[in-house]
Amino acid sequence: MSKTIETRRDHACLIVHGPDQRGLVSAVTTLITRNGGNIVSLDQHSDDPEGGAFFQRVVFHRPSLSAAIPDIEADLAQTLDAFQVEWNLSDMSVPKRMAVLASTSDHCLLDLLWRERRGELPVTIPMVISNHTTMVEDVRSFGVPFFHVPSQGPDKSVAEAKILELLQGNVDFIVLARYMQIISPEFLQQVGVPVINIHHSFLPAFIGAAPYRKAKERGVKLIGATSHYVTEELDEGPIIEQDVIRVTHAETAADLQRMGANVERAVLSRAVQWHAEDRVIRHHNHTIVFN
Amino acid sequence: MSKTIETRRDHACLIVHGPDQRGLVSAVTTLITRNGGNIVSLDQHSDDPEGGAFFQRVVFHRPSLSAAIPDIEADLAQTLDAFQVEWNLSDMSVPKRMAVLASTSDHCLLDLLWRERRGELPVTIPMVISNHTTMVEDVRSFGVPFFHVPSQGPDKSVAEAKILELLQGNVDFIVLARYMQIISPEFLQQVGVPVINIHHSFLPAFIGAAPYRKAKERGVKLIGATSHYVTEELDEGPIIEQDVIRVTHAETAADLQRMGANVERAVLSRAVQWHAEDRVIRHHNHTIVFN
Amino acid sequence: MSKTIETRRDHACLIVHGPDQRGLVSAVTTLITRNGGNIVSLDQHSDDPEGGAFFQRVVFHRPSLSAAIPDIEADLAQTLDAFQVEWNLSDMSVPKRMAVLASTSDHCLLDLLWRERRGELPVTIPMVISNHTTMVEDVRSFGVPFFHVPSQGPDKSVAEAKILELLQGNVDFIVLARYMQIISPEFLQQVGVPVINIHHSFLPAFIGAAPYRKAKERGVKLIGATSHYVTEELDEGPIIEQDVIRVTHAETAADLQRMGANVERAVLSRAVQWHAEDRVIRHHNHTIVFN
Amino acid sequence: MSKTIETRRDHACLIVHGPDQRGLVSAVTTLITRNGGNIVSLDQHSDDPEGGAFFQRVVFHRPSLSAAIPDIEADLAQTLDAFQVEWNLSDMSVPKRMAVLASTSDHCLLDLLWRERRGELPVTIPMVISNHTTMVEDVRSFGVPFFHVPSQGPDKSVAEAKILELLQGNVDFIVLARYMQIISPEFLQQVGVPVINIHHSFLPAFIGAAPYRKAKERGVKLIGATSHYVTEELDEGPIIEQDVIRVTHAETAADLQRMGANVERAVLSRAVQWHAEDRVIRHHNHTIVFN
Repeated sequence: MSKTIETRRDHACLIVHGPDQRGLVSAVTTLITRNGGNIVSLDQHSDDPEGGAFFQRVVFHRPSLSAAIPDIEADLAQTLDAFQVEWNLSDMSVPKRMAVLASTSDHCLLDLLWRERRGELPVTIPMVISNHTTMVEDVRSFGVPFFHVPSQGPDKSVAEAKILELLQGNVDFIVLARYMQIISPEFLQQVGVPVINIHHSFLPAFIGAAPYRKAKERGVKLIGATSHYVTEELDEGPIIEQDVIRVTHAETAADLQRMGANVERAVLSRAVQWHAEDRVIRHHNHTIVFN
Repeated sequence: MSKTIETRRDHACLIVHGPDQRGLVSAVTTLITRNGGNIVSLDQHSDDPEGGAFFQRVVFHRPSLSAAIPDIEADLAQTLDAFQVEWNLSDMSVPKRMAVLASTSDHCLLDLLWRERRGELPVTIPMVISNHTTMVEDVRSFGVPFFHVPSQGPDKSVAEAKILELLQGNVDFIVLARYMQIISPEFLQQVGVPVINIHHSFLPAFIGAAPYRKAKERGVKLIGATSHYVTEELDEGPIIEQDVIRVTHAETAADLQRMGANVERAVLSRAVQWHAEDRVIRHHNHTIVFN
Repeated sequence: MSKTIETRRDHACLIVHGPDQRGLVSAVTTLITRNGGNIVSLDQHSDDPEGGAFFQRVVFHRPSLSAAIPDIEADLAQTLDAFQVEWNLSDMSVPKRMAVLASTSDHCLLDLLWRERRGELPVTIPMVISNHTTMVEDVRSFGVPFFHVPSQGPDKSVAEAKILELLQGNVDFIVLARYMQIISPEFLQQVGVPVINIHHSFLPAFIGAAPYRKAKERGVKLIGATSHYVTEELDEGPIIEQDVIRVTHAETAADLQRMGANVERAVLSRAVQWHAEDRVIRHHNHTIVFN
Repeated sequence: MSKTIETRRDHACLIVHGPDQRGLVSAVTTLITRNGGNIVSLDQHSDDPEGGAFFQRVVFHRPSLSAAIPDIEADLAQTLDAFQVEWNLSDMSVPKRMAVLASTSDHCLLDLLWRERRGELPVTIPMVISNHTTMVEDVRSFGVPFFHVPSQGPDKSVAEAKILELLQGNVDFIVLARYMQIISPEFLQQVGVPVINIHHSFLPAFIGAAPYRKAKERGVKLIGATSHYVTEELDEGPIIEQDVIRVTHAETAADLQRMGANVERAVLSRAVQWHAEDRVIRHHNHTIVFN
């Protein structure tokens, strides 16, 4: 499932997506060749060969990449203009900057800090922001700055403004690691970078409070977690990754919750890794994940 | 997950459940010993040591079992009376009689017929009933009687009366193997035996028509199935078994449906096996499954 | 894991593999475009960007494909000559012809027959050959020819010659579905088509007779199966697919064997599907599987 | 899979194993009742109803347990004497003392330290011993003593004597968390407590050096890990737990090794938890695991 961290010198990742057209793959690969690149991996998907959407991820090696990027981008702009597709080129030696927002649960937060330290995630973590101070020592022991922004009750605008100020310009994406505050649509619009969330999932769904108790009462045999991009419709954004764990009647509701936490951290860390490696393309309300 | 078929000569399965009490395990096991039984396996569960409910499944070997059953049952009645628990004793050499209700889908039905023929399910299949004739030849090629009871539109009472007549006295439990008719509360009350159903499941749930299309649009990464006992609240009965399969963006909605069918038949066959082996105890709206 | 059956009209599958070189992807995709093809899916892999081997599978749609194939093949020959790579073009509307060799076990054989009948495998089955007559009726009930070629003791040459005669020119690949005869190197050389085998696997391995008993004695917690291409070194050929199932101390050695059979048939059917869809490329003693 | 930590006040865990006999279950459960205990959970297994071995784990609640233990043990000795079985009674409020031996790899060691700190393992960790100093700071940041005992080349007796001195009387079991030194039979005999090891596993096995490279060359699709009790026959002791992870051709040998490390730590932590909760019974060269 998981992959090598491709934060490598002189490697670029090119994402292309838009309306599927004859000649597009050929145009992209020819462009890379004429700019001195050697294709290392290529994944693509077309959701309908007849007039559907096209998605491509190409990793290529190019000596002296950083100096060459402006020329390659100019060529991409000119070549792909006719195809009316969107594209993004990134230098894979530059890790993405990830902010983590958390509350009092440590399982997802510590897992991300630990994996970053072990070199398993191609990210840097410029800050952790929390509405509680529970995790301050743990976070700083990893050498990561911790900022406490208390919740302000029903009016979130002051706290959100403070968080936006901390984030602005400093991060490439945000992870809600069991951050128990609802994000306002205004915040989402202003933050300008992707926001990834994690939450528990059940088959069937249990709406409202105390889902683990309801799951226990129904005798579910699987406990799951879903990681998705946050959109204005709460918990309804494009799914990045999901997984489940098997449970039995022998587990209490508290056990289910603890086991659910283990699934949550595993699912979130995979979603974060794939996002950080530019493996995830958003399209309408779903994702294409090249992993 | 699955287990040996325990349809063995001179083996009995005793189920006990009721309020948990000190001395109950001791009373049951002493009773088996004094009736000449040797305990082969024993599973038990207590959902709360302080005033909770108690569940037990004991398999024991007793030479000349069938002759001894009346005496053992009399002893059980007398001994367990004081504990106010329910109990059931079954001779494991007698397979349960299973009726299958189906419509036009073959995947679950054929899987059950095939496993029964291979000796993997401790059941006999006295009949398959369908509201279509699609599967008549396939079913009869297994030597199993097939009865066609057409749907009657909104008023189900005629068809259900016909089905009840076929079933009455002939079956120990019923499996809805993708039977696309809603069962009326009256039918459930009159049929007098457990009814097991199978349906697809998603995280999150997709309500209403075309769930696979909605799952595709949201980009789900897991497709699941749930088998449960049928109660008056449609699809809300106690869950027996669940499972999922991993999917990606590369699958179409039709692929998801086909892969979902594979999970359905696997989940249903496990649920049927465990029910037939007396491994499932219903309690409120959930199950205890000793597997 | 499994995929849509891509046995579609006017769809071609092109496999390219050989030394990795700059410009190769571009050359292939440009060729498809200039021959009127529209790329539907493209998978590729390079085992080392510096001087490694390159593997590619491209599915493209081309109206009037069958008439155009000679021209496309001529262009491929000319274009790819300079790159010194191997390539193969196949019309995906033509199912592969699969012979099955079996002995007395039915689990793998019936699973393949059933899946072919349900349209889940893009193959035809021109014949089943067995050294026993156990399965004759089952096979013929699927409308598939059955040939009995008895084993001849230590000297296999007569039996193998008979089998070769039946196969020659009639099949595109062969599946050993628990065929309990050792295949001679001479047979392999003469048969001229890929041969796929299935066998049980354990962690750790248990050498010699009665592996399930040894696995039981060591208390293994996983039972597995491996499907691979047959080479002259028995059971040492390139692995196509593997899987495991969880077991406990409660299973007997006979249970392990029965559960192992379930894994075997699942693993074999996936390996067969992927081979039949040209998703598997052999390279040295391993495979690249684009699934 | 995993379970609630049962380190609870006034809860006892009784393990019984020996030759299966009629009346044994009844004798044990009656004994618990007459000593004021209420059975909370009971698991048992018989490997052959006719003259096989019997295994039982009973958890019971008994007010003022610690004061009552001598009386219960006296009753057990007297009652079970006639059955010639072995038994062990433990107070579940007393965590087991676990020493960890490690070398330079951190993945298994940190996982154990972390889980202990999070309260997921019913153990204390009185010491970590390593033949390297790589992990000293990490270990001490968890408040756990770290002792450095350098390897002494081929003659291990001096280093082993030093380790034995540190361990003697201070620990209830030992975990080899990627400890890259071979343990001598003399050490095993003198240490007097169970030793748990973890190592990678493959289907098929790859003997000798560089197993991940060999696995890559053969194109394995699953990478696994096995945790077992250490016996004099290196890596051949009773298996406690195993698991695998799916890999593809896209992973390098280094990826396989990294993914293998993830499986190793998950498998080891489950094995340690089950051992610490008295869920594992050794019998000949295998285990019965009540989980």
